[in-house]
Amino acid sequence: MPPIPRKVHINVDLGEGYGNFRANPSCTDEDLIPLIDHANVACGFHAGDPLIMQETVRACKRANIKVGAHPGLPDIQGFGRREIKMSPEELTAMVRYQVGALQGFLDAEGVPLNHVKPHGVLYGMMYRDEEVCRAVYEGVPMGVRVFGLAGTIQEKVAKELGLPFTAELYGDVKYSKDGKLVIDRKKKPWTAEETKKHVESQVISSSVTAVTGEEIQLPIGDHEVSMCCHSDSPGALEIVKAARQIVDKFNQDQGYA
Amino acid sequence: MPPIPRKVHINVDLGEGYGNFRANPSCTDEDLIPLIDHANVACGFHAGDPLIMQETVRACKRANIKVGAHPGLPDIQGFGRREIKMSPEELTAMVRYQVGALQGFLDAEGVPLNHVKPHGVLYGMMYRDEEVCRAVYEGVPMGVRVFGLAGTIQEKVAKELGLPFTAELYGDVKYSKDGKLVIDRKKKPWTAEETKKHVESQVISSSVTAVTGEEIQLPIGDHEVSMCCHSDSPGALEIVKAARQIVDKFNQDQGYA
Amino acid sequence: MPPIPRKVHINVDLGEGYGNFRANPSCTDEDLIPLIDHANVACGFHAGDPLIMQETVRACKRANIKVGAHPGLPDIQGFGRREIKMSPEELTAMVRYQVGALQGFLDAEGVPLNHVKPHGVLYGMMYRDEEVCRAVYEGVPMGVRVFGLAGTIQEKVAKELGLPFTAELYGDVKYSKDGKLVIDRKKKPWTAEETKKHVESQVISSSVTAVTGEEIQLPIGDHEVSMCCHSDSPGALEIVKAARQIVDKFNQDQGYA
Amino acid sequence: MPPIPRKVHINVDLGEGYGNFRANPSCTDEDLIPLIDHANVACGFHAGDPLIMQETVRACKRANIKVGAHPGLPDIQGFGRREIKMSPEELTAMVRYQVGALQGFLDAEGVPLNHVKPHGVLYGMMYRDEEVCRAVYEGVPMGVRVFGLAGTIQEKVAKELGLPFTAELYGDVKYSKDGKLVIDRKKKPWTAEETKKHVESQVISSSVTAVTGEEIQLPIGDHEVSMCCHSDSPGALEIVKAARQIVDKFNQDQGYA
Repeated sequence: MPPIPRKVHINVDLGEGYGNFRANPSCTDEDLIPLIDHANVACGFHAGDPLIMQETVRACKRANIKVGAHPGLPDIQGFGRREIKMSPEELTAMVRYQVGALQGFLDAEGVPLNHVKPHGVLYGMMYRDEEVCRAVYEGVPMGVRVFGLAGTIQEKVAKELGLPFTAELYGDVKYSKDGKLVIDRKKKPWTAEETKKHVESQVISSSVTAVTGEEIQLPIGDHEVSMCCHSDSPGALEIVKAARQIVDKFNQDQGYA
Repeated sequence: MPPIPRKVHINVDLGEGYGNFRANPSCTDEDLIPLIDHANVACGFHAGDPLIMQETVRACKRANIKVGAHPGLPDIQGFGRREIKMSPEELTAMVRYQVGALQGFLDAEGVPLNHVKPHGVLYGMMYRDEEVCRAVYEGVPMGVRVFGLAGTIQEKVAKELGLPFTAELYGDVKYSKDGKLVIDRKKKPWTAEETKKHVESQVISSSVTAVTGEEIQLPIGDHEVSMCCHSDSPGALEIVKAARQIVDKFNQDQGYA
Repeated sequence: MPPIPRKVHINVDLGEGYGNFRANPSCTDEDLIPLIDHANVACGFHAGDPLIMQETVRACKRANIKVGAHPGLPDIQGFGRREIKMSPEELTAMVRYQVGALQGFLDAEGVPLNHVKPHGVLYGMMYRDEEVCRAVYEGVPMGVRVFGLAGTIQEKVAKELGLPFTAELYGDVKYSKDGKLVIDRKKKPWTAEETKKHVESQVISSSVTAVTGEEIQLPIGDHEVSMCCHSDSPGALEIVKAARQIVDKFNQDQGYA
Repeated sequence: MPPIPRKVHINVDLGEGYGNFRANPSCTDEDLIPLIDHANVACGFHAGDPLIMQETVRACKRANIKVGAHPGLPDIQGFGRREIKMSPEELTAMVRYQVGALQGFLDAEGVPLNHVKPHGVLYGMMYRDEEVCRAVYEGVPMGVRVFGLAGTIQEKVAKELGLPFTAELYGDVKYSKDGKLVIDRKKKPWTAEETKKHVESQVISSSVTAVTGEEIQLPIGDHEVSMCCHSDSPGALEIVKAARQIVDKFNQDQGYA
């Protein structure tokens, strides 16, 4: 199977604290920012508060990395990882609200909005339920890029709505045999070696071993590509470093500037 | 004392429900919209949720009235009427967040942001404390109009920061002898007659009887003028109708188109 | 089909405001309290705040009606009517928390806890999913009475856990042909006549016409019986008055003291 | 100046996470529990959620340490460290609610409620404002012990209301020259040596060096004594270990069993 046909980037969720609280006790955003290309900034519904958002946008600006909105379900306590049944109208409005709020900080700093990537269980609800997906994407400002899983409803609906699409790979999440993500509510630690193997397989051959053992192909197509690692994983910093190393080598070997 | 030297408008807080909850049981926003010029739309911190904001912006657009942001302290339970000590950085970020969120809905509907008017106790904190006022106004996007009380810190700081200023009169709130507002936590009902007298005095002679009996002058100066009435007052609809009647007659008598 | 074999009581949800906000704009708790036997007091998660809970308990005490806890999903904005997927441990803990909080007010007033009745979509989740039902009931203090729907998982699990069970009838909610409730997110108004007919059929013949037209029997068995009416329905006061009238006549005709 | 005339205990705030979020990234409650005598368990308003409360109560029970309620202002985002102006009725009800909620978990585990200790800025508001103090203590169940600062309004009001009083010392907070606490919003790290010196002075001579340099006496009187250390301080585990070492030696040297 062929390598990813384009330069691979790395995205990480940032600003996922809340007041004095932290979701990623193992490292800080400052540790991660130098290692990534795209930040998904939490918008206050599953994590993030106005002050954290402001500081996160400024930190991303200083490091010159791209900033996207990371809207989630309205559930700080559940970190946006408990499914909530909301109407399509609520979903659209909720996304519009969160993206607008982030835009307020971006405008104040003169930073463009690069993309929108929904958070947590909302992301999964979107590739399982077209009505949810459509409602979420209708809350994205016209023409703004979305990050999602290629080969799923996300890609299909983004295309229908005319939203540019970046295909995501996952550096620290396993796949089911149908190419979906296997989410554990309590994350298990990954070693750097596991991460490297998982990342390498994806970039070098557009394929990955599913949790059930099958080798599956990732239908990246012609999209821009960004690999997601999670800042709240145990050992997040080591995971992101490992992913960065593989991705950098891959981009260099392939001659992707 | 002279009449208000410019056309007088009316502003009302709208969208102050929360989910199934309502703060103004005596009338609906739909009742009030035809009677007013400026809507201050709650932004989700003291009232308002994304769906309500979206619907409120649409209703204002249909009625062709101007829409402003109405940011409040983060306290749904206290309706933004319990003082919370926040740092200047928190205040600025909180305003930027809320105004941005509303902007998301305005952009989606193609409606411009007309102004920003802080809500509840935050408004009072601003004219009592210059650091609070400055912090709040620093969260307002550059060049956007603010509504406030002329002759107070609000006017002074708005000028320093280059924010256009609309002087507010209050149709259903009494004044202290220093021209500040006298806020009751539990609002008392006003009769239409009381409202008319209170409004009439303000527009015809730029003055009003303070709660302690003195006749005081309102230092409106050369500013645009908008009179605030509250949608959650008992008898709000009758109050706004009474204010509208007096204001319309005044504008007509003065030849203000 | 036989009449309900025991005295019928009436229960209503009370204390469902939040700060300045009200969910039942058409009447107040004070209007309803004289008409009912059992109050289900909101515990702060879907509605209710500490001050409202305290005042509601005191009002019930003055009127000498029985007080139960009305725990809901943690979702003020959604009024506990949006399904949230929580783990069994979370559900148990959430119920324990809310019942304990109400108990704090009951203890302060010397009022016993009469029962626990889950609110909104949680109630429906319980009769659809045994794991949810068991988790909720495990949060109920040992030996405390629960209100639920006879013939469903609720009755079965209550029995298994040794919780006394009161069978509920619904005065202002329609039934599906399998004896479950048909919940509209936006409630439609009921006339007094409709309510009377709906209530009368249930008490006189233990049966009711389902939304699909079938006459179905309600498996009340030997349980205590309480008929629920909703305080946030449009026309709630008229509905409760109508139900009270029919229920009083029924209890009298049957010689139930 | 004389040593503390009774056995000195150590209390720490526990359960101060929120969902996936942690306030004390440097150590876990499990690290601290073996080192302390009294746990102040967060009750969901400034930190803590039902599941965390349940687990914390169970962990304390297993370790056989005493459990108190740690009610705070309703402000997760501000961690109960932003002053909020609430009415006395609101304060009383808020405390009753939180203590009741914890009681729910204690009852389920058969653990008695040992004490109530208000959290964060609420604690400081109480020794600065008698009305606040009285309102908070009126929310404490009759006869339940309160932890507070001897020589302040807290001690006086507890006595008036007949609440048993435990005098607190602070192992990781400095004092002003009037014996009040000097709270930094962002906590600075303490070394083990600083902590030991600070603790030792307090237990051995009932005195401490104020931030302004004066040696001040702590008016412990005849009360039970518990020394507070904070679980969210940087280096919390080392601080608590240092305090434990000094306190154990002191108790032993004094022959306090």
